[in-house]
Amino acid sequence: MRTSLCDRFGIELPIVGFTPSEHVAAAISRAGGLGVLGCVRFNDAAELDRVLDWMDEHTDGKPYGVDIVMPAKIPEEGSQVDLTKLIPDGHRAFVDKVLRELSVPPLPDDTDERAGVLGWLHSVARSHVDVALKHRISLIANALGSPPPDVIELAHAAGVPVAALAGKAEHAVRHVDNGVDFVVAQGYEAGGHTGEIASMVLVPEIVDAVGSRVPVLAAGGIGSGRQMAAALALGAAGVWMGSFWLATEEYLQTMADSGGMQQALVGATSADTVRTRIYTGKPARLLKTRWTEAWTAPDAPEPLPMPLQNLLVSQAHNRIHASGDPSVVSMPVGQIVGRMDRVRPVADVIAELVSGYEEALARLEKTR
Amino acid sequence: MRTSLCDRFGIELPIVGFTPSEHVAAAISRAGGLGVLGCVRFNDAAELDRVLDWMDEHTDGKPYGVDIVMPAKIPEEGSQVDLTKLIPDGHRAFVDKVLRELSVPPLPDDTDERAGVLGWLHSVARSHVDVALKHRISLIANALGSPPPDVIELAHAAGVPVAALAGKAEHAVRHVDNGVDFVVAQGYEAGGHTGEIASMVLVPEIVDAVGSRVPVLAAGGIGSGRQMAAALALGAAGVWMGSFWLATEEYLQTMADSGGMQQALVGATSADTVRTRIYTGKPARLLKTRWTEAWTAPDAPEPLPMPLQNLLVSQAHNRIHASGDPSVVSMPVGQIVGRMDRVRPVADVIAELVSGYEEALARLEKTR
Repeated sequence: MRTSLCDRFGIELPIVGFTPSEHVAAAISRAGGLGVLGCVRFNDAAELDRVLDWMDEHTDGKPYGVDIVMPAKIPEEGSQVDLTKLIPDGHRAFVDKVLRELSVPPLPDDTDERAGVLGWLHSVARSHVDVALKHRISLIANALGSPPPDVIELAHAAGVPVAALAGKAEHAVRHVDNGVDFVVAQGYEAGGHTGEIASMVLVPEIVDAVGSRVPVLAAGGIGSGRQMAAALALGAAGVWMGSFWLATEEYLQTMADSGGMQQALVGATSADTVRTRIYTGKPARLLKTRWTEAWTAPDAPEPLPMPLQNLLVSQAHNRIHASGDPSVVSMPVGQIVGRMDRVRPVADVIAELVSGYEEALARLEKTR
Repeated sequence: MRTSLCDRFGIELPIVGFTPSEHVAAAISRAGGLGVLGCVRFNDAAELDRVLDWMDEHTDGKPYGVDIVMPAKIPEEGSQVDLTKLIPDGHRAFVDKVLRELSVPPLPDDTDERAGVLGWLHSVARSHVDVALKHRISLIANALGSPPPDVIELAHAAGVPVAALAGKAEHAVRHVDNGVDFVVAQGYEAGGHTGEIASMVLVPEIVDAVGSRVPVLAAGGIGSGRQMAAALALGAAGVWMGSFWLATEEYLQTMADSGGMQQALVGATSADTVRTRIYTGKPARLLKTRWTEAWTAPDAPEPLPMPLQNLLVSQAHNRIHASGDPSVVSMPVGQIVGRMDRVRPVADVIAELVSGYEEALARLEKTR
């Protein structure tokens, strides 16, 4: 299973794996793919720096990348205190009421009450870039499309290519015009921020629009070798997988308290996700739980715009996560969750992708 | 491009083409696929009988099928007059207002004011089955899943296999348990009645659930050889295509007044569809136009349940269609509409599917 992507990055398999866990990212790279560490959870750039030191030491010299969350236009943003003032009291009261109704306990007094995820803020995302470029990274991917021009210039000056997610062909064209080196075609079925157009339609559309200029990765709905073969048949140079790594043993090494989340994912079907604005303010696909259902009740307020919505729910996320209750999990995941039926080592997932891919190709060859 | 489906039906290509046009259906069968004629538009079984006589004569002895719309449980239904009484006045007033605002003219006085599409009614759909079984049909497909048990028995007694559409794996299992011989896995991106799970995830899920018992056809998002290759990589034994035939020359031979509709489809992108209950009462994907947008206005009523909603809008559909205005078209179509960029003969579409499939396979083989 080799494509041009393998030569471009010096990897064995055209599998790019996005994950917030350094243990997962390193395992993906060691297994022959390209592990991409999500930076949004690092409020403190120094912590990211330490984790990337760890990555440098635990990837056997193999390439890895980072993922940031950064809009192309720098938004006006005040300090965290200013932003917090923009959250209506009614929204706060609703979150408190829902947590009470769902029996999500408060955090213990001695818990470090973190400010929530600040990586959505431009200044914090920018610090991720500066720190990451001090390490031997092979890719900077941006979940919100083209990064600002100076970030692209900075990456290119350091010899690091840039990838951007796109949910429409016109967005992909804009990214490439902006200097982006790889486009990730993110279909409707994907976890996290996602558009309306499904992978089967979106991937060849983006390949036709920009494929002669840059490699296109297929994201959304991929968790088996058959789906990898389908993505490559559609014209993708490789796959971008995110959700699937949530059900790996390595994920627990980074996030030890994720047992309830993994239990919820392993029990879910492909029908158990919902595309909603309650996680960040922009449409993102999440596991459907009692938490997401609460936001569809008649008394639920409209979600706030990014970055306010995530600030609103970040403390709730901490409480939900600490509760360990699978029925209230708040977690971005794609429709592929239906295929995540057990918690496995990363290397096993990748071995199955490879063997499934070979089987699919052998089957296709018989149709000629 | 041969699969087990070809042997099963005695066809050259594993392409099943659903269409309300006998000219399109016959052309698909003559080109080596299996044309499936949609019966829902035939209020008069005698008219269907005449059209199937025509099919028998114009398919060069090659196989073809029919498609009905029939729930597994026989609903209580009165006469058309009784049903009409169940439509609230407010709904009628809204439709009249929208047609006025969209400048859709009334039908000329001499137009035969048809009762609307009655094929949704069980009694009418049942008459389609009885008529179709008098012809040399090779398949009865049902758009609403398993047909009633006696219809399956009747078809099997006549040696005719039955296909059913499914948007979830559990529905596919139920269909096969009911005796259905083929399952059509209809992804979110498909036109017409559709569920929430996209083809990339749904097709392998349904193949895993029932693929060892019956062949699975992939529907939704297919309009190129690359997408056919993807569908077969996912484990499908063939593809089911509906939307793509709307932009063919043969379609105009049946529906001469469809120029405005074809113009609208050819100009649309993959983002120009919407999944809504306004066509039949059940969620169906339509071309997004000023007509569908009118139903999202704050003053728009909730669509009525099946079959009332289609009775409500059937006269509006006639007026819209007669107007020839592309901006108000009411037409089920999938996200593949973005790839429908010109009106072509059916044979050209199929030739391109075949050559694109071969190219995709050649590309995949280079990855080994």
